[in-house]
Amino acid sequence: MKIAIYGYGNLGRGVECALRQAPDMECVGVFTRRPPASVQTVLGAPVYHVDELSAHKENIDVVIICGGSATDLPVMTPALAKEYNVVDGFDTHAAIPAHFAAVDAAAKEGGTVALISGGWDPGLFSLNRLYASAVLPEGKDYTFWGRGVSQGHSDAIRRIDGVADARQYTVPIDGALQAVREGTNPDLTTRQKHLRECYVVAKEGADLARIEREIKEMPNYFADYDTTVTFITAEELAANHSGIPHGGFVIRTGVTGKEGEHKHAIEYSLKLDSNPEFTASVLVAYARAVCKAASRGECGCKTVFDVAPADLSPLSAEELRKTML
Amino acid sequence: MKIAIYGYGNLGRGVECALRQAPDMECVGVFTRRPPASVQTVLGAPVYHVDELSAHKENIDVVIICGGSATDLPVMTPALAKEYNVVDGFDTHAAIPAHFAAVDAAAKEGGTVALISGGWDPGLFSLNRLYASAVLPEGKDYTFWGRGVSQGHSDAIRRIDGVADARQYTVPIDGALQAVREGTNPDLTTRQKHLRECYVVAKEGADLARIEREIKEMPNYFADYDTTVTFITAEELAANHSGIPHGGFVIRTGVTGKEGEHKHAIEYSLKLDSNPEFTASVLVAYARAVCKAASRGECGCKTVFDVAPADLSPLSAEELRKTML
Repeated sequence: MKIAIYGYGNLGRGVECALRQAPDMECVGVFTRRPPASVQTVLGAPVYHVDELSAHKENIDVVIICGGSATDLPVMTPALAKEYNVVDGFDTHAAIPAHFAAVDAAAKEGGTVALISGGWDPGLFSLNRLYASAVLPEGKDYTFWGRGVSQGHSDAIRRIDGVADARQYTVPIDGALQAVREGTNPDLTTRQKHLRECYVVAKEGADLARIEREIKEMPNYFADYDTTVTFITAEELAANHSGIPHGGFVIRTGVTGKEGEHKHAIEYSLKLDSNPEFTASVLVAYARAVCKAASRGECGCKTVFDVAPADLSPLSAEELRKTML
Repeated sequence: MKIAIYGYGNLGRGVECALRQAPDMECVGVFTRRPPASVQTVLGAPVYHVDELSAHKENIDVVIICGGSATDLPVMTPALAKEYNVVDGFDTHAAIPAHFAAVDAAAKEGGTVALISGGWDPGLFSLNRLYASAVLPEGKDYTFWGRGVSQGHSDAIRRIDGVADARQYTVPIDGALQAVREGTNPDLTTRQKHLRECYVVAKEGADLARIEREIKEMPNYFADYDTTVTFITAEELAANHSGIPHGGFVIRTGVTGKEGEHKHAIEYSLKLDSNPEFTASVLVAYARAVCKAASRGECGCKTVFDVAPADLSPLSAEELRKTML
């Protein structure tokens, strides 16, 4: 299976690394909007300009699109799906139905297979919400995120006057997790589920009290949370906060029996050193599934809900039954 | 979707209860080898003799077969798959390939859909082994069971001379779980992964020391484990050990990046008050998937690896994308 990487930020670099771990896949190359000579790949994958993609069409089975959800993917994925089998990690939950419709129409026009919203949330977390709710219909599920870096919240802090750099961690609150696990079905407010920890490098002479206040009062991003602000130096930020860890929990509790007398808890959790590399690994597994679906003559847009698990693995159905069932 | 329950032990009772939670399913009846008049159902489902099944054929979409894996299912599932769409929870891992082959041949002969080895292990745990290994190819996975009642081990104790009743709990060892979560990829012996706790009611005048020794030295069942034996009264057994709880953990740790420099941990766990009722709930969700596959004209044997998650849910693809993705 020959894979093209379209876009080369953190996610694209993660895909390049993940492809090396796939025995049945190879990386055709990285396609970028930047001047190719300016891009150095992690493992030496060849770099081309995006305009060169069509020249490689015969040599590409799937394009993994590594753009941003805000403005890139809504345009790129439908456009590319007319010509190529594609995978993306579109993660704006509320906009998924519209994105699905656009990509599905393009893939059906082109006779291609597209997989949107791969990754872990949406993605593996979504799968666990679905499996758990199908098995325990009388129950309630909860998703917690973290401890991990939120890029969007870090960016919001950086836009405040006087801020040189910042890193924001989303932290699930232990007591809330515990209450959920015990099956008490608590109604939790935004504030009760997550804390927000902010590490901020201020510009020289900036008014720290004002920065802290502006962060804590920022609507949507911080106002509804208990937020801590810690000022640190640029050196401390580089030394202690350069990673992009993330993770979280999907927990569903529910009841069975004659009168719901038996309680059950299903818990799925991720603890990730590198959010983009893990997300990339999920996209690569779904690229395999897209390839298999295309070779069976399928077409149209899919999500993780539509893919049989066996299609994600390089092992045959017989090997899977023998070794993993 | 009209579901028949074939066999009415703990699992069959669980299926009857689980069907009540499924808005799109109804229970046609319970089919038993016992005299129907001797069977009282939990929620009032009608009871028939197994010989009456064919008289109800036109009214049955799927038969959920609730027999034992040792002798019932290897015979029942292929026989019934020739005539009906079926689901079973065949759980003898080593014999799955042979069972699959027999059921697949029968289902193809009959033009039916069969799903074997539903439940949680095999079943939901298998799914998590597959998803995790597809996403983290360079890694290692571990399955721990418990804390929960092992029926097989409890039975083995009951066969010892002088034992009136017994309950055996399989208990995962915390330190081993912790070492696995930390990604140290420990090589764990059988003894390092699980403890076995035995609660035994002895007959009057029985030699307790001999019973304890016979348990602890029993090959395969106990000799390779650290085993505790506690003698209790029949009243204590009834009061404190009448439930059938179970659960466990599937953990995979793996690495990504240029040189495997980033670690990741994926953990799935179940904590179940009632093993048979939870297993039954899984079988009911897969009965829905079997129904959908049959209505699309598919035939043959499947496992949980072959079923797209969306087929397990009563919600439409649109609703799933909107609410769970």
